[in-house]
Amino acid sequence: MSAARNLVVALCGGIGGAKLALGLSRVMAGADLMLVANTGDDFEHLGLAISPDLDTIMYTLAGLDDPQRGWGRRNESWTFMAALEALGGETWFALGDGDLATHVERTRRLRAGEALSAITADFCRRLGIAARLVPMSDDVVRTCLRTEEGRLDFQDYFVRRRCAPRVLEVIYDGAAAARAHADVLAALGDPRLRAVVICPSNPFLSIEPILAVPDLREAIAGAAAPVVAVSPIIGGRAVKGPTAKMMSELGLEVSAAAVARRYRDLLDAYVLDGTDADAAGKLGIPVTVTNTLMTTLADRENLARDVLASADALAKAAA
Amino acid sequence: MSAARNLVVALCGGIGGAKLALGLSRVMAGADLMLVANTGDDFEHLGLAISPDLDTIMYTLAGLDDPQRGWGRRNESWTFMAALEALGGETWFALGDGDLATHVERTRRLRAGEALSAITADFCRRLGIAARLVPMSDDVVRTCLRTEEGRLDFQDYFVRRRCAPRVLEVIYDGAAAARAHADVLAALGDPRLRAVVICPSNPFLSIEPILAVPDLREAIAGAAAPVVAVSPIIGGRAVKGPTAKMMSELGLEVSAAAVARRYRDLLDAYVLDGTDADAAGKLGIPVTVTNTLMTTLADRENLARDVLASADALAKAAA
Repeated sequence: MSAARNLVVALCGGIGGAKLALGLSRVMAGADLMLVANTGDDFEHLGLAISPDLDTIMYTLAGLDDPQRGWGRRNESWTFMAALEALGGETWFALGDGDLATHVERTRRLRAGEALSAITADFCRRLGIAARLVPMSDDVVRTCLRTEEGRLDFQDYFVRRRCAPRVLEVIYDGAAAARAHADVLAALGDPRLRAVVICPSNPFLSIEPILAVPDLREAIAGAAAPVVAVSPIIGGRAVKGPTAKMMSELGLEVSAAAVARRYRDLLDAYVLDGTDADAAGKLGIPVTVTNTLMTTLADRENLARDVLASADALAKAAA
Repeated sequence: MSAARNLVVALCGGIGGAKLALGLSRVMAGADLMLVANTGDDFEHLGLAISPDLDTIMYTLAGLDDPQRGWGRRNESWTFMAALEALGGETWFALGDGDLATHVERTRRLRAGEALSAITADFCRRLGIAARLVPMSDDVVRTCLRTEEGRLDFQDYFVRRRCAPRVLEVIYDGAAAARAHADVLAALGDPRLRAVVICPSNPFLSIEPILAVPDLREAIAGAAAPVVAVSPIIGGRAVKGPTAKMMSELGLEVSAAAVARRYRDLLDAYVLDGTDADAAGKLGIPVTVTNTLMTTLADRENLARDVLASADALAKAAA
């Protein structure tokens, strides 16, 4: 008899990833869930180390997220930003007063020599998060965009320029030399691994930076458990953010199928929305057609169950 | 005919100094007032450069101070501190959300290579402060206390230990090598100098760190204009803070006269409260007896007028 297969590793970007991560954390034992977060968006601003995707996932799992705004913390105050503006500081990147505590304390601990993964683990423990949240690497990887207006750092492109410049190429600076956290590699090689989930996040800005870390990609490719992705595209549109615009600029068809093809060599199964059911037969892998628009908490839990069921069906077929 | 004597240089610590600084700024042309602030209390906390006395003076002159609390900013929020506590950060030093903007932006600019004096001047300009606020030095000077419990950094003693340990000696680390700002030295040597004012601040923690900067002390001693101090002691007690406790621990009489004797070699005139009128004849210099307890704004303006009148009377007598 083999060991119980109960570990799930999920690759997450920001908002879409955090929603499915929350769903997963509620339909399985939280301690068996490992969330590998994109850190390609991380940057230094006002001298503070900011990790937008890590924080979105952390706040979401701790129940501290602002569901209306979609980023940052609920019950947030903005006194800092108003005071900063009066002093002539840079205000293009909005930092809530509570959110600032995460950045100030993380920066302090990084400067004291702690690894981002250790700081993240400690924050999550203190916030009562059962799942294990791990940055894709403790090494610095920075997503940059080659655009028609020249090379832009991620936050310059995403926040300051609001994704307006046409993208020619996405570059993951530092990824080739980065190493995944040993615990992530161990989980991907663990006989108890049940599934690797690629969350419905922007492929270029959230998932592919993670996959650009060589040993992480290799470990996913070599994992014994099924790799299941969820489409971030519904009916030819992204739920949020520039995914559709970027696909189009990069010469790709804006469709659920086109996203699946980007992950092709890794993918064992795909989950897409009922709107895109016609793509189901064209991908050559098992496809689950369901509701992928996660509006309610029940939507998140249901999608998480469908994703795990998809992996379990493949594993059963292979057994 | 000599030039108009309109420049005033005032040495300030925190709250008491800021009150008289505000009074001075309202009874003379703000642009003619130079406030030299103690930076011996400055420290790094959570990776941020904090300058308590500079900020108290700046907030007071900008009308941003909290008159009830006596430190920090009015209409402050505290979301940062609550969030920091949840993350396990150090919360013994209270940082309001608006106040934090000053520290974050100052730290960023210091790290970018700007001088504390330049950053302070820019903040003051943006906050509409007409007076010139200058740190006693751009070089690092740190007040430390040798106590019965060992050596303590200033904020450890003042905030964390609430001034409880018995003080044996006050040390101004770095002062001997520190240099005053050239503009302060120029003002002290300017023929238009009307007065040098030593504000009613703690002698050991606020004024003597300033006087410990060698070229600054020398320039004050050599200034052609009268040097007038205001007693921080009223009726044998300090209005606020540990002045009286420290005087007693250091073997000094707790009195307005004892403070005057500490500044003796620099002092041309002294201003003390009516409660201490009996000391007036004992000091060997002209003494103004007035109300030095600055409860209302009118108190601050009246005391400022009394201080300037005291200097003007001396200058007239010498002319």
